[in-house]
Amino acid sequence: MMFSQELTSSLTLQTDARVVLFVLDGLGGLPHPKLGLTELEAARTPNLDELASNGVTGLSVPVVPGVSPGSGPGHLALFGYDPVSSNIGRGALSALGIGFNLNSSDLAVRLNFCTLDDSNNVIDRRAGRISTEHNKQLIKELSGIVIDNGKIELATESQHRAVLVLRDGDFCADVQETDPQQTGVPPLRPEPLCKDAESTSVALCQFLQGVEDLIGDMTPANFVLMRGYSGLPDLKPMGDLYKISPACAAAYPMYRGLAKAAGMAVLEAGDTLIDGVNTICSKWTDHDFFFLHYKDPDARGEDGDFDGKVASIEQADSVIPDIMNMCPSAIVITGDHSTPANLGQHSWHPVPFLISSKWCVPDNVSGFGERSCMSGGLGTFSATDTMRLLLSHAGRMKKFGA
Amino acid sequence: MMFSQELTSSLTLQTDARVVLFVLDGLGGLPHPKLGLTELEAARTPNLDELASNGVTGLSVPVVPGVSPGSGPGHLALFGYDPVSSNIGRGALSALGIGFNLNSSDLAVRLNFCTLDDSNNVIDRRAGRISTEHNKQLIKELSGIVIDNGKIELATESQHRAVLVLRDGDFCADVQETDPQQTGVPPLRPEPLCKDAESTSVALCQFLQGVEDLIGDMTPANFVLMRGYSGLPDLKPMGDLYKISPACAAAYPMYRGLAKAAGMAVLEAGDTLIDGVNTICSKWTDHDFFFLHYKDPDARGEDGDFDGKVASIEQADSVIPDIMNMCPSAIVITGDHSTPANLGQHSWHPVPFLISSKWCVPDNVSGFGERSCMSGGLGTFSATDTMRLLLSHAGRMKKFGA
Repeated sequence: MMFSQELTSSLTLQTDARVVLFVLDGLGGLPHPKLGLTELEAARTPNLDELASNGVTGLSVPVVPGVSPGSGPGHLALFGYDPVSSNIGRGALSALGIGFNLNSSDLAVRLNFCTLDDSNNVIDRRAGRISTEHNKQLIKELSGIVIDNGKIELATESQHRAVLVLRDGDFCADVQETDPQQTGVPPLRPEPLCKDAESTSVALCQFLQGVEDLIGDMTPANFVLMRGYSGLPDLKPMGDLYKISPACAAAYPMYRGLAKAAGMAVLEAGDTLIDGVNTICSKWTDHDFFFLHYKDPDARGEDGDFDGKVASIEQADSVIPDIMNMCPSAIVITGDHSTPANLGQHSWHPVPFLISSKWCVPDNVSGFGERSCMSGGLGTFSATDTMRLLLSHAGRMKKFGA
Repeated sequence: MMFSQELTSSLTLQTDARVVLFVLDGLGGLPHPKLGLTELEAARTPNLDELASNGVTGLSVPVVPGVSPGSGPGHLALFGYDPVSSNIGRGALSALGIGFNLNSSDLAVRLNFCTLDDSNNVIDRRAGRISTEHNKQLIKELSGIVIDNGKIELATESQHRAVLVLRDGDFCADVQETDPQQTGVPPLRPEPLCKDAESTSVALCQFLQGVEDLIGDMTPANFVLMRGYSGLPDLKPMGDLYKISPACAAAYPMYRGLAKAAGMAVLEAGDTLIDGVNTICSKWTDHDFFFLHYKDPDARGEDGDFDGKVASIEQADSVIPDIMNMCPSAIVITGDHSTPANLGQHSWHPVPFLISSKWCVPDNVSGFGERSCMSGGLGTFSATDTMRLLLSHAGRMKKFGA
């Protein structure tokens, strides 16, 4: 049986109830080989444990069992979008990640500075991993390039990585990527792969000509390779979908970008988790849905830093009283995916999930952890159920059918 | 993954095994604020507990997590139909609810008697909530109205509410509802919203003209507002789907109507639960699938009557020995949705579910309740799995694939 976003949308109610979605990025983990406990299980989390004890828990599957999601699909599923059909391409995600103010008609392209030899063959696909400082100088150099049917904007990502955005034109992502994925051959041409992409191809060729003219004689970076052509997915704004006024408090640009793509107001939320909580507190009456994002558990997990991830989760636990003091009608605490420190990368493991509201049927779970959530009252379910569960537990959904 | 009704159907077997689906309407609940137990947990249910102990339990999700179903979707899911695509409109459900013998080609319309002023503006959308007795007199008055391309039938629901059924014509529900949802403006016209609805619009205009002619000078009810145009959904009969001879024992008209829509034989089942059980006993050799419906848990839940709901569940428990004496090959006991007395309305919470058969893998659950079923062997699953589980546990489904 399919349940469409439209049907969910038709059941939502506008009320005064306020809700919070607190995402501990990369929350789920694996047992420490010696300790036998996961990061979340090892962390001292009295406040989360109390919420788990009074609320109802479960395990959330971001995409489907066995799939490790990137940040895009992980978050979009939590926001109630199909993470597969609304997947965001590399160019657009890179643009969001560096805080680029991407618009829905923009086409973003991931650039790598590279080195060509005299015969125009690629000899280094990363131009010797030039410094970010050098990258910035090159981007400044290239930013004067003009195309006929639109505008270009450029931004440094890091080292050899940069982002090109085509805007104010009619662009299409269906163009050949130019990275040959090997050395000793020339870059591919950005050929149009469909009729609609012809003007985009022309624009990209003009841009490449400009690159050649401006840095073709330099070293080591004397050209660029292009891939990940993508725009923002066409997402119905969460405000319209759920009859909410949604706002995001996130310190990292990519998550602010994802929130903006989903139609949230992006609050000035400072650099730390406490800043984010304070921001929500100060805007409590202006919105009724708050997405609070906390990056550190994922970052420490990717570092392979078990103890660091434990500490970051304890930090998250410490802000729970401040959040609960605002008396949200319902709060969900979960992750967008697992990032076990043992593994040092995103993983497919289902993610601990808790919801607290006065309309829960509390389960027998008394602590927040991977193993305890396995016997939670919500069972193991799709992350795309999150918004529906959050809104219904706050009384913001009406009955379906007579 | 989709599991189609056709595939289920292709796997069913005709055998002598008899099965029972016992629906305690609105079974699921929320913990009592002081007691800490739900209605089902608080009830003394030795027979249900024994079945749970020897059988296997779980939690059933009627539509999708977070959605509170009406009676229509809740039951259709249990019968194995997609509750979204087979959703029944308000007019048809009202007709079923008053025991109207609705046919598949009928178009049912929910009527509200209303009051118009001299300028034909609605001044009371419910005509002062006239008495049911007055409603019956008006319906008698209006029942002589004749339309050109079919017949009309009318029936009182209660107070200002009535049902109009168009039959013996070619009708379409795609017509403008006439309730303006506000006072001080005239009723809307039943304009056709597509080409196929033109003759339906003509019929409804003729009916409205008749209403004006017959009661236009009366007070307070001098006109009607029309909404919820709907027919029965086009359901493949359960008998064909599952190779069963299905029968319904239900005291309330709406559930008999739903059962009839799903192709069940509707038994004369009296007014009480015991009557229903006795009816099934007397028809045990005539059918092999019995849907037993018990309304009281939902009614007491909607009343906000925790103790009353507890008592109704104890009443259900008391008939279990009589049912088990018939030796069904498998029995499912569950609800169509939750109706927590705390909430006083249908809710989204998953519903306790048990199946008993000699082919169960009994789980470690020894009592029938929300919290115990959370750790049941069936997990948390879609209510649309119910028929398949029931039939397979009775040996009425064959292997899929070689």
